[in-house]
Amino acid sequence: MDFRIEDITEEEIDRRLSVVEPLTDSVRQLVDAVIRSEVSDERLAAAKEKVDAIVADLREQQRPGSFGTPYTKEFIGMPWGNAAVGARNAVAPPLRIQRSPGLAECEMVLGAAYEGPGGCVHGGVAALLLDQLVGEAASTDGLPSFTGTLTVKYLRPTLLGPLSARAEVTRREGRKTFVHATMSDADGVTVEADAIMICPKDFVLPTGDALPPAADRRLDR
Amino acid sequence: MDFRIEDITEEEIDRRLSVVEPLTDSVRQLVDAVIRSEVSDERLAAAKEKVDAIVADLREQQRPGSFGTPYTKEFIGMPWGNAAVGARNAVAPPLRIQRSPGLAECEMVLGAAYEGPGGCVHGGVAALLLDQLVGEAASTDGLPSFTGTLTVKYLRPTLLGPLSARAEVTRREGRKTFVHATMSDADGVTVEADAIMICPKDFVLPTGDALPPAADRRLDR
Repeated sequence: MDFRIEDITEEEIDRRLSVVEPLTDSVRQLVDAVIRSEVSDERLAAAKEKVDAIVADLREQQRPGSFGTPYTKEFIGMPWGNAAVGARNAVAPPLRIQRSPGLAECEMVLGAAYEGPGGCVHGGVAALLLDQLVGEAASTDGLPSFTGTLTVKYLRPTLLGPLSARAEVTRREGRKTFVHATMSDADGVTVEADAIMICPKDFVLPTGDALPPAADRRLDR
Repeated sequence: MDFRIEDITEEEIDRRLSVVEPLTDSVRQLVDAVIRSEVSDERLAAAKEKVDAIVADLREQQRPGSFGTPYTKEFIGMPWGNAAVGARNAVAPPLRIQRSPGLAECEMVLGAAYEGPGGCVHGGVAALLLDQLVGEAASTDGLPSFTGTLTVKYLRPTLLGPLSARAEVTRREGRKTFVHATMSDADGVTVEADAIMICPKDFVLPTGDALPPAADRRLDR
């Protein structure tokens, strides 16, 4: 896995995000508009030409592969390409997750781009977002955990719109962490998930160093 | 759920797709380019302005909510807003699924937009795509099924790149259908999933009619 170190300051992180987040938000609007637009075929075709021109410009200088998961030397993560939380990734709603020890929570508004059955959140999108959340809850002590098994139960349809989600560590057992998570609308829980998270046996920091003490670890800001 | 009837011919479906699919593909390229671009801040900011102008144009006429799941009177589905397969939805890779009775299969290439751990497919994206696939396998007799429980096991990391996935019905029991699914790379299975799919008790066609005989049902093309 590509965990690279990029030694930049928090100010530089802020500066980069201040440019790229508004662009990503605009692309999210574009994804939504393409789904919902009812303008003429000619205007749709003209939009395609304009999008292609922007793509050609952006691609004049680009990294060869995916964004990867860079960290600063202070172990601040920059998962900006991540499909659930990425600040540069218009596929991500994105989730803006609040963390405390063993707990990860967020509120979000899911629109047309996350539809499955008409008017409802795609069950797989709920699984995607809850998978991210259980990973964040399991990793609040700074030790990365990856999903071993994720079981998602759909209690009733989740309508598109404002939603909240929450994941909490219920138990730790050696390298395994057990996490319970829910997605809710205004009337209560619509989806619940249970995950067994695994901390890799041979985890080494990108620097080659041992992990810093728990109190000093920050996997993200 | 919004299952509406839109009485158009197959030729009209083809005509609409011929305009909107190339636009959606270009937006997929834009999502990827925004993640990977290394052009200057000025060029990123200029790209944002151009995207905003396209969005404003597309939004001049648009449907009020999400795309929904329209069907023709021949029961051909047009799930073009769907987050996994939608022809108008740049969040979807999209999956192009081959169906036969009790079986759904597809090949896909997952790029930077589907990343979780550096260089790897987000575990939640695997869950999203497999959720769609188990639904399609369960529905090949034309009777819609919704996911009740989805259990996803991650055997090893799935690298971004060319992948295949497969879902097969293993058992039916009243309104429940049991489906097993896998995602694979060139070296074999990386993720497996088991789903219990539920056919709604009170399912009624958008026309108000009873379901046509199984042989005449087509949930999609």
